[in-house]
Amino acid sequence: MTLNTRIEAAIDGALGRATAGSVPPKLAAALYHAVKPGGARIRPTISLSVALACGDDRPALADAAASAIELIHCASLVHDDMPCFDDAAIRRGKPSVHAKYGEALALLAGDSLIVLGFDVLGVAALENPARAGRLVGEMARFTGMPHGICAGQGWESEATIDLATYHRAKTGALFTAATRMGALAAGEDPEPWTELGARIGEAFQVADDLLDALQPEAVTGKPAGQDARLARPSAVTELGVAGAIKRLEDILSGAIASIPACPGEAMLAEMVRATAARLTPAHTATAAE
Amino acid sequence: MTLNTRIEAAIDGALGRATAGSVPPKLAAALYHAVKPGGARIRPTISLSVALACGDDRPALADAAASAIELIHCASLVHDDMPCFDDAAIRRGKPSVHAKYGEALALLAGDSLIVLGFDVLGVAALENPARAGRLVGEMARFTGMPHGICAGQGWESEATIDLATYHRAKTGALFTAATRMGALAAGEDPEPWTELGARIGEAFQVADDLLDALQPEAVTGKPAGQDARLARPSAVTELGVAGAIKRLEDILSGAIASIPACPGEAMLAEMVRATAARLTPAHTATAAE
Repeated sequence: MTLNTRIEAAIDGALGRATAGSVPPKLAAALYHAVKPGGARIRPTISLSVALACGDDRPALADAAASAIELIHCASLVHDDMPCFDDAAIRRGKPSVHAKYGEALALLAGDSLIVLGFDVLGVAALENPARAGRLVGEMARFTGMPHGICAGQGWESEATIDLATYHRAKTGALFTAATRMGALAAGEDPEPWTELGARIGEAFQVADDLLDALQPEAVTGKPAGQDARLARPSAVTELGVAGAIKRLEDILSGAIASIPACPGEAMLAEMVRATAARLTPAHTATAAE
Repeated sequence: MTLNTRIEAAIDGALGRATAGSVPPKLAAALYHAVKPGGARIRPTISLSVALACGDDRPALADAAASAIELIHCASLVHDDMPCFDDAAIRRGKPSVHAKYGEALALLAGDSLIVLGFDVLGVAALENPARAGRLVGEMARFTGMPHGICAGQGWESEATIDLATYHRAKTGALFTAATRMGALAAGEDPEPWTELGARIGEAFQVADDLLDALQPEAVTGKPAGQDARLARPSAVTELGVAGAIKRLEDILSGAIASIPACPGEAMLAEMVRATAARLTPAHTATAAE
C-alpha cells in the first residue's frame, strides 16, 4: 500500500466510527467536509515516512499516529477559519466549514475532530497500550498549552510576541509531533527526531509566507495576501521574496542533514526533497525573479 | 485527603503544567478563569467516589480520570457560552470566558482544555498504560462524536431531534463517563457502572430544567429562563414543576438501586443522596408548592 492509501484508510476508519449510528446529520456532514478530500496530507505523510524509516513494526499504530495528527490539523483549520480568527470563507477551494454549516457547527466540528484524534489513539491503545499512551502525551503536548498549536494561536492575542516561539508553536508543533510520533509508533526514541520535524515546520512556515504573498486565490484555495492585510509577521516582509526562498533552501538542507542514522535514511531524505518540491512550486520561483 | 482536595490538587497540577514556561499570558489566564474556582465539581466527585467504592488501588489514576473529566466539562462550558451557542455573558457568577477575554481566546481556551484533559491521561499512561489507554478511549467516546457531548450539542442544530438521545449525549454522557472511568481507574469492568452514571445524568438534566425555570440569576450565576427564551425542550414545560420534581426523585431512587454490589456500595448511595440534595435546594421545593 502507498502511504497515501494507508493515511486515507485510517482517516476514513476514524470518520466512519465518528458518524456511525444515530448522529446529528449536519455535524456528521461537517466532519467529512472538514477532512475530505484533504489537502496535501503533509503531516501524516511525514509521520508514516519516519515510522517506515524506523522499521514500522506496528503498522496499525503508525497509521493511528498519522491519522490522529491529520485530524488535529483539520480541527485547527476549521477553528482558524472562523470569524473570530481569520474569518476565511474559503478553504481548499471550497467553502470553509463555518461558511457552509454556520459557526455553531464549525465550533463543534473542530471540537469533535480534536477528540477524534485522541480517540484514534485510544483505539490503538487496546493493542499497544504502552506506545499508544506515550503517543497521547506527545499529541497533547504539541496540540495544547503550553507549547502546542493552541499556544501558537494564543500568541496572536498578545501585543508583544517572540516570533520564533510563535512560529515554533503555531506551525512547527504538529510537524515536530509528526516526526516524533512516527518514531514512537515504531518503538524508537523520539528525541533524535525532534530537529527534523522542527526544521520541516520552519520550512513550511516560510513556504506558506511565500504562497500567501505570491499566489492567487485560485492556486492556494484561500484569500491571497492575508498576512499583509492582517499585518501578520512573515518571512517575505522580513527578507523579501528572494531572501525568503534562499532561507527555505537552507532550512531544507538542514532538515536533511538532521535525519538520524536509520535504515530508511535515504528514503527520508527523498521525502524531504519531495516535500520541498511541493512547497516551492515553479511559479513561486518564477515570481521571485 | 477529602475527595475535593484530591480533585483540586489534580486540576491544579494540570493547569500548572499547561501554563508553565513561556506561554501566551492571556490564554493562560483564560484557562484559570474557566476552571478556577470551580462549580460543584459533581462529575469528578462521582468519578472518584466510584473509584473509591471499587477499592481505589491506583489513586493517581483515579485522580487523573476525575480531573480529566472536569477539564472536558469546563471546556464545554466555555464553548457553550459563546455567542454562536448560548451567548451567555455570565457563568458561575462572573463573566464568561468570551465576555472577559474575547471570542478568539475563548475558542482557544476550550480547545486547550479538551487537549489538557487528554494530556492528563497521557501523563497517567506513563505509570499505568493499559488502564490509562482505556480511559482515553472512554473519555473520547463520551466527549466527541457519535454519542458524546459534542454530538448532544450538535443535535441542537437539527430540526427534528429525539429528546432522549439528545439529553443522553448532551448532559448524560459525561456522567456516564464519570462512573465508568472511576471504575476503570480502579481496575474494574466499567459496564455495570453505566446505568448509575446515566441515571445521575438524567437527574441532573431534570434538576437543571427546574433551576432554569425557578431560580433567579443571583442563585444560578447565569441568566434565568434561558430554556423558555431559546424554546429548548425542558422537563418543566413537559411535566410542570411538581411533575418534574417527582420525576427527579424517581430517577434518583433508580440510580441508587442500580449501584453494583461492591465494598463501597453504602457510601455511594450516600453520595447519590448528597448529590440529590445539592440538585434540589430547599427553595426549588418551596417554589413548587
